[in-house]
Amino acid sequence: MDQPIGVIDSGVGGLTVARELMRQLPKEEIIYLGDTIRCPYGPRPESEIVQFTLEMVDFLIKKQIKLLVIACNTATAFTLDLLKEKLDIPVIGVIQPGARAAIKVTKTKRVAVIGTEGTIKSQAYPKALKQISSKLSVSDLACPAFVSLVESGNYSEEKIKKVVHESLAPLKSQQGLDTLILGCTHYPIIADQIQAEMGSQVQIISSGAETAREVSTILSYQQLGYKGDRFPTHRFYTTGDPDLFKQIANQWMDDPVDSVKNVVIDQTKNK
Amino acid sequence: MDQPIGVIDSGVGGLTVARELMRQLPKEEIIYLGDTIRCPYGPRPESEIVQFTLEMVDFLIKKQIKLLVIACNTATAFTLDLLKEKLDIPVIGVIQPGARAAIKVTKTKRVAVIGTEGTIKSQAYPKALKQISSKLSVSDLACPAFVSLVESGNYSEEKIKKVVHESLAPLKSQQGLDTLILGCTHYPIIADQIQAEMGSQVQIISSGAETAREVSTILSYQQLGYKGDRFPTHRFYTTGDPDLFKQIANQWMDDPVDSVKNVVIDQTKNK
Repeated sequence: MDQPIGVIDSGVGGLTVARELMRQLPKEEIIYLGDTIRCPYGPRPESEIVQFTLEMVDFLIKKQIKLLVIACNTATAFTLDLLKEKLDIPVIGVIQPGARAAIKVTKTKRVAVIGTEGTIKSQAYPKALKQISSKLSVSDLACPAFVSLVESGNYSEEKIKKVVHESLAPLKSQQGLDTLILGCTHYPIIADQIQAEMGSQVQIISSGAETAREVSTILSYQQLGYKGDRFPTHRFYTTGDPDLFKQIANQWMDDPVDSVKNVVIDQTKNK
Repeated sequence: MDQPIGVIDSGVGGLTVARELMRQLPKEEIIYLGDTIRCPYGPRPESEIVQFTLEMVDFLIKKQIKLLVIACNTATAFTLDLLKEKLDIPVIGVIQPGARAAIKVTKTKRVAVIGTEGTIKSQAYPKALKQISSKLSVSDLACPAFVSLVESGNYSEEKIKKVVHESLAPLKSQQGLDTLILGCTHYPIIADQIQAEMGSQVQIISSGAETAREVSTILSYQQLGYKGDRFPTHRFYTTGDPDLFKQIANQWMDDPVDSVKNVVIDQTKNK
């Protein structure tokens, strides 16, 4: 099937998921929509998160996507079940893939999750982990400093090291911890520094890479994968400033991002 | 859903897949059937492999399984598409999960596969890898000595090291190789020795662990997972000697295997 895969995020964080989709599924075309103007979703009430996400989904459904990826932890926590029910295409969030990958790799059964305050407060990861395996010990930690550090794009190696060291201190004292889930799509950008801080005995799970893997599984299971050979041109949309989006995209993505379009999806503005 | 997951294999090799299913999905009940008396399937003609596999599937379908795992590389190569079409439950083989995991982890895009002569001759892994990503360089190697080494159960650490060293020599000269798929369900038993021989720059992918991960994905996607909490009792069947099967199972599995039953599934014998 030559229809595109749709990816939605509250902003630029989901680009790490899109990057993994492009790397693991190089024949698939991606349409990305980042709601940058209303970012972050984390501190907003549930009703707004649901409404904003539905507006993004409407935009992509009109582009005839064959599968939807919710590349935002907050939006996944609040809208995955609703969207799975509402849409007749497969819908994949970022939480369960990270949880499953952690269960696969942990030997000590001691897993930790880091994320934004919203994601940690939602307890979405501990719930997903325990639903599959009640034998796990799960700890979590909000690392609110990481997102602005990554998005600023303007940080020294020394500054990152300091922030990572201070933020992760509460996890380092935990005996037997062998698996750490990066429960925020921004964090893979500083994965190397997080790995260095935690030490080689801790395996780092990137939700983005694991989500791309599961998209591959579901495309194959549902026989929705592109069958031929091609080098697709991806499309990027943002509700915010396209130049700023493009600048960050070109820092993060493996291939150059040439075209980013601004769109208005806020339905109150369409009236 | 409290129905069991069915696992079929030509013999004992698939126990490494069952072990991973039990570890990653501890609430799910497993029914395992090993066709030990007609093992190995590798050298048999396709028509026999298909017929024997269908006989195994018939046996498990009568036990009302909710999902079928073909935990045998040869049987996957020859019957996955057929069984997916024939059955109205999800069917998962061991080849695609290993391929997808390799694509996820490789950075150099140079992947190798080792397996039995039958699996390597079928080219099932290179085909699965290239279908998803034509950018990969894939090499493969038959390691016929590994299965008897593992099944004998009677090997010294030194002997394993020697056989592994000699068998893998052709792969060690390959520049840039960073990912090795264990394309035979017996090989995870000697994964540590394979890792030591290949060096830490090569990531080892166990098809069994990756298959269990994908079973978890599909159970969740199809809402077939067991919802409550339980410690299920698994059931093991073999067409061969139950005592021999039990002996190997107790060497390989994490939890003790108490009960193994002999069954006759060969339809010519039922007449």
